[in-house]
Amino acid sequence: MTLTILKIGGSIITKKNSIEPEINHAELKRVCREIKEGKNGKLILIHGAGSYGHPIVNRTGIHKGISNEEQLKAFGETQALQNELNSMVCKELKKTGLPAIPIQASSSAVMEKGQLLYIDTRVIKGLLDLGMVPVLYGVPAYDVEQGCSILSGDVIITYLALELNADNVIHASDVDGVYDKDPKKHEDAVLLKELLTLDNLNVTGSNHVDVTGGMRKKISQLLNAGVTARIINGLKEGMITLALKGEKGIGTIIKSGRVQNHL
Amino acid sequence: MTLTILKIGGSIITKKNSIEPEINHAELKRVCREIKEGKNGKLILIHGAGSYGHPIVNRTGIHKGISNEEQLKAFGETQALQNELNSMVCKELKKTGLPAIPIQASSSAVMEKGQLLYIDTRVIKGLLDLGMVPVLYGVPAYDVEQGCSILSGDVIITYLALELNADNVIHASDVDGVYDKDPKKHEDAVLLKELLTLDNLNVTGSNHVDVTGGMRKKISQLLNAGVTARIINGLKEGMITLALKGEKGIGTIIKSGRVQNHL
Repeated sequence: MTLTILKIGGSIITKKNSIEPEINHAELKRVCREIKEGKNGKLILIHGAGSYGHPIVNRTGIHKGISNEEQLKAFGETQALQNELNSMVCKELKKTGLPAIPIQASSSAVMEKGQLLYIDTRVIKGLLDLGMVPVLYGVPAYDVEQGCSILSGDVIITYLALELNADNVIHASDVDGVYDKDPKKHEDAVLLKELLTLDNLNVTGSNHVDVTGGMRKKISQLLNAGVTARIINGLKEGMITLALKGEKGIGTIIKSGRVQNHL
Repeated sequence: MTLTILKIGGSIITKKNSIEPEINHAELKRVCREIKEGKNGKLILIHGAGSYGHPIVNRTGIHKGISNEEQLKAFGETQALQNELNSMVCKELKKTGLPAIPIQASSSAVMEKGQLLYIDTRVIKGLLDLGMVPVLYGVPAYDVEQGCSILSGDVIITYLALELNADNVIHASDVDGVYDKDPKKHEDAVLLKELLTLDNLNVTGSNHVDVTGGMRKKISQLLNAGVTARIINGLKEGMITLALKGEKGIGTIIKSGRVQNHL
């Protein structure tokens, strides 16, 4: 049975630009329905934090480490907020009939200067074998050097893809994929079907892989880790279902040199 | 710096006999205040599930393992419910100013036929060194033999006490401690200051260590594991603070033969 890891961006299930944590109920409901419809083999879900994470982290600076009592409290509060968001996601998944189960990666994850060293994956493997759908999410995590750093959903996805030898990795983001130029500035920007290195993009003369800040980092993480993944637009109805069913013509494939999966 | 592990029974912070999950807000608030007041050195909190756990587990039978799709869903739903209870506990703790952080033990815990094999404790140790207060809770957990079993707060407490070499272990329950006879049936029942074995109690002619079903199991787990712990009445105002401050005259000490802590 194939293993798919699907990441749902925080920009899809939350109101990303809200300063207060705010869920996007309608989109969350739709996304959960699409996941249920497309599920095909074993599935791990990972969701981002959106407005549940970025505002509090930027305000308190805990991603750079802990240096006072206020940051200690913010570390805990940020984790609690992520658990609340995750509870809502799991509730919606459950309504569709999927056996979703929350997994707090930071209960075992160890970071070092912002780099992930370790997540305990034995339970995740066991739950997948049972037929469950583990649901992980971006979290603030214990860092041996600086006390705390952020373990993003994007980092969890590459770690699990390699550890569990995933067959398919899908990033549902809020853009169609990766363009050769910034599509907001260039009318002739072309959606790339396939991307092998970030260098190719520089050759085209554009420094913008995409307007969303996280896209370049997302891609370089995948390429550096040797994980092949498809980036799709999770805001467009039907895309998540199609991608889960194995549709090859959508979004952009970030193609790592190593052939570790079937994409 | 000493390490204290405090367990708050689910019968204190939830309405224990409710069929639906129902929190006891007033008691939760008071308990959190008392913890803040009494905290003394490093502290781990563990809370029980009360009406957030027992009804759904009894209804679905997941503590005996997973044998159908409905139980798979119930496993996930039970976990999500525990996370919701934990979120509320952490929120109240945060209001008192304590740097509480949720830790979902079942993200790494492995069970075998209902017995705990393993919990990853590296993160917990790291968080304690930072000055945080990890908050664990009873959870349904992955079981290598039967798919799922219950990892109770009482089992977590003995595991962590041994793994982290705790100095003080406190059980805040809904009774004053352990009596020589069932105090509801015998007016002359005496609260034991100290308990060395369960056998002693049989000698007194009483089969009832206590009216709450869990007490005998709780005690035998502590004695078998070699963990010395104080059982106090967490419903009585001030007891939790006193116990955290090291007051020796309250409740019942379950005294293991091994001297692993200062009690």
